[in-house]
Amino acid sequence: MTTLEPRLLKGFRDSLPALAAARQQLIDSVRKVYERYGFLPLETPALEYVDVLGKYLPESDTPEGGIFALRNADGEWVALRYDLTAPLSRVAASYPDLPIPFRRYQIAPVWRMEKPGPGRFCEFYQMDFDTVGVPSVIADAEACCLISDALEELGIGQGEYLVRVSSRKILGGILEATGVAYAEPGAELSPQALTALRAVDKLDRIGRSGVLALLGKGRLDESGDFTPGAELEPSQIETVDRYLQLPRTSRTEFCERLDTLVGGSELGQAGVQELREIDAFLAAAGYSEDRVAFDSTIVRGLGYYTGPVYEATLMFEIRDEKGEAKQFGSVFGGGRYDNLVQRFTGKKIPATGASIGVDRLLDALRVLGRLPDRVATAPVLVTVMDPDHLSDYQAAAAELRQAGINAELYIGAGRFGRQLKYGDQTGKTVAVIIGGDERENDEVALKDLRQGRELSQGIEDRKEWLASQPAQITVARTDLVARVREILDRYAT
Amino acid sequence: MTTLEPRLLKGFRDSLPALAAARQQLIDSVRKVYERYGFLPLETPALEYVDVLGKYLPESDTPEGGIFALRNADGEWVALRYDLTAPLSRVAASYPDLPIPFRRYQIAPVWRMEKPGPGRFCEFYQMDFDTVGVPSVIADAEACCLISDALEELGIGQGEYLVRVSSRKILGGILEATGVAYAEPGAELSPQALTALRAVDKLDRIGRSGVLALLGKGRLDESGDFTPGAELEPSQIETVDRYLQLPRTSRTEFCERLDTLVGGSELGQAGVQELREIDAFLAAAGYSEDRVAFDSTIVRGLGYYTGPVYEATLMFEIRDEKGEAKQFGSVFGGGRYDNLVQRFTGKKIPATGASIGVDRLLDALRVLGRLPDRVATAPVLVTVMDPDHLSDYQAAAAELRQAGINAELYIGAGRFGRQLKYGDQTGKTVAVIIGGDERENDEVALKDLRQGRELSQGIEDRKEWLASQPAQITVARTDLVARVREILDRYAT
Repeated sequence: MTTLEPRLLKGFRDSLPALAAARQQLIDSVRKVYERYGFLPLETPALEYVDVLGKYLPESDTPEGGIFALRNADGEWVALRYDLTAPLSRVAASYPDLPIPFRRYQIAPVWRMEKPGPGRFCEFYQMDFDTVGVPSVIADAEACCLISDALEELGIGQGEYLVRVSSRKILGGILEATGVAYAEPGAELSPQALTALRAVDKLDRIGRSGVLALLGKGRLDESGDFTPGAELEPSQIETVDRYLQLPRTSRTEFCERLDTLVGGSELGQAGVQELREIDAFLAAAGYSEDRVAFDSTIVRGLGYYTGPVYEATLMFEIRDEKGEAKQFGSVFGGGRYDNLVQRFTGKKIPATGASIGVDRLLDALRVLGRLPDRVATAPVLVTVMDPDHLSDYQAAAAELRQAGINAELYIGAGRFGRQLKYGDQTGKTVAVIIGGDERENDEVALKDLRQGRELSQGIEDRKEWLASQPAQITVARTDLVARVREILDRYAT
Repeated sequence: MTTLEPRLLKGFRDSLPALAAARQQLIDSVRKVYERYGFLPLETPALEYVDVLGKYLPESDTPEGGIFALRNADGEWVALRYDLTAPLSRVAASYPDLPIPFRRYQIAPVWRMEKPGPGRFCEFYQMDFDTVGVPSVIADAEACCLISDALEELGIGQGEYLVRVSSRKILGGILEATGVAYAEPGAELSPQALTALRAVDKLDRIGRSGVLALLGKGRLDESGDFTPGAELEPSQIETVDRYLQLPRTSRTEFCERLDTLVGGSELGQAGVQELREIDAFLAAAGYSEDRVAFDSTIVRGLGYYTGPVYEATLMFEIRDEKGEAKQFGSVFGGGRYDNLVQRFTGKKIPATGASIGVDRLLDALRVLGRLPDRVATAPVLVTVMDPDHLSDYQAAAAELRQAGINAELYIGAGRFGRQLKYGDQTGKTVAVIIGGDERENDEVALKDLRQGRELSQGIEDRKEWLASQPAQITVARTDLVARVREILDRYAT
């Protein structure tokens, strides 16, 4: 018999149970926070018309514009969505009866045809929340609060993250003040301004000198590739550089310094005013500078932002594969895009929102040790020592489930030793055992599987305590539920 | 400015918040049941190689074989998955360290290029649970229990659904007993047998006479299209017909009658034995005939099933658009497919599992009136009567959230009347109101928005009670959380 190789597409991955369960847990936690603020769920198709999606990816110079496209049965070009913002703007333009503000969240995969690399996949989850129809930057300020809350809900404490905020209007105003055209009112960014923005957005990766090169003639990177720059004059570059060097002081002080820097630019002044309103909202809500700060280096890479931009950074270092320290970078980011819906409607419909980097956050939680090592959906395995008495085991599993304790009945063909190993493989906490003796004496044996795993892994802070607990106990059959619950409670956090 | 039409792809749809929230609720409920039995989550890519997916759709004669395919950057043919079983069998063949049994659930959209029609979409959710590596039909029996539990968890009561079970081996044995080749051991079904199976699978739609025609020369339908039949001899058709007419008696009696009917066919006898084992498990678990019954007419349409097949039907009628009574049909179905993983591994890896029809079930729950009309993620709207005192409103929203009550702060630009309308549009239960008087007296007004909606909709059984409740009360500001909770509790089910 010829067999087929079970190939997975390059750049894609399976999420086996441990990863899938951890991601599900993260998604559930964040969803809870989105709903706490009243955001409603929305789902849109994976496939959209290519022109409806538009070309807003920073990577639009990659093969096929970075998207997965195909022709449908009618010969039209359609593609897998590359983000959740383009579909939202189509929805906002399509349904006249939507409540305004339209506040929706969407949690779904998106697809980008990127060059695969370690930790980079062509398919990944986004969790977006957006507010459509609100011109006031209160919506942006609230988004920053929500981002803080979501990270804290995930167990990332204050001081371990920072939400950093700026406004496109400020860098725009500074460019204008130096004589660089930013954008016509209501129109796209000028190419020069867009190149300058993207240069600044690369600060984390290429450093100050790299940014300055990209603001000017261009930059030759280590591999010998030359990236053309924004062609600013030296004096213009100097002004932008002065702006980028602004220290992250208090939000009010930051606004005062900006005020001077943007000079007479209307656009710049509008940006400063935006930040002042955001500051007022944040202060009233009790989100101080150690949670949400203003930061001149935040611009975001996407072309469509028009006002406040914000992103959350994790403030601790991790070691990469080579053991070198590196920053985690941005895990949650967004901004205001007041012109995106206008593509469809012709009239301005303001919008703002943010997107979470699900898998990068998962990595962060793993590094912090705040992800359970392995998540069993059912903490109990009812082993089957004697298949002739299957109904006894069925009854035990049913009784546990009835009591609200998820319990798996072992239905494979393995002998007892293999069954316990299966319990370990699937992360079970307790194995329920009924052999001949137990049956005769109306008893049941309970084995604490987790204890064995933690001891063998040498989990230091629990080791001593664990060693003092009996790993297996025999209890009256009638006490099954109560005694299983006792063991589970030991591990409840 | 030229604008773009916000087109949605034909055959696709947006799920606006009411639909998306209801679906999410359904998915959460079913997931809970999957986890109760210890199934673990798995996620696989939306895109797979075309040959890895294989051609198992009953609709494989539709345009492009019924799938959405594209060439990737390397020129290879890839396609959006059309089900979750093909990806599972690839996974089962790919990771040697998976626990065995491998019990996974997957909840995800799938895509089929079908002719769109009312209620038929090219993109829809599937929720699958499967057990890989267990030859025993205990896995199939447990699947039937789980399906019952899941439907009951959704509020579909006993008597409102029926899980119906048969085995492919029985119809196969009956065909063999009459001299029709069913399949070589381990090989695909014979074309004649597959045509016969698919004929039987259409019983619900085309009736007994239609099935008999398709078992013979073929069938001319109302539109004038001719479908070629399985070309069975009249005596063979008669035997199959006698089988299909078997009454749905008790499970044990059903097995006895089958025993006679399959005669000396080994395959048929194996099928009867399977049903007997399933019966024993079900009886021990307390799932009687009014929940899980044996039914000769169940065969399922997919080519790859090899043993037990099962499907849940809703037992109540609904009215269609024209007011005519119709059955809901199958909402949950599956079966055993012991040869599917073999395509990759060359060795037999048994597997069984089922898939839920998410959107058909949603429809059913709506018809039963068991879906909340509209699901607000936050039941409270904090209105903003005086934007100059925004911080007061912020504080009220924060206080509610702190107490675990989801609360939305109105951040739009609408006046007070529009704000209340927004509360209605988004399904809020309570509006929190702080005007000048309330602020002065340290009070807050609470308006019961839901009461107004229910009264205006004339919800009879609550109307009188509602009319006796005050729609708006003024309470001390310090009692905000307690009094809001009081109103919410009125509506708790």
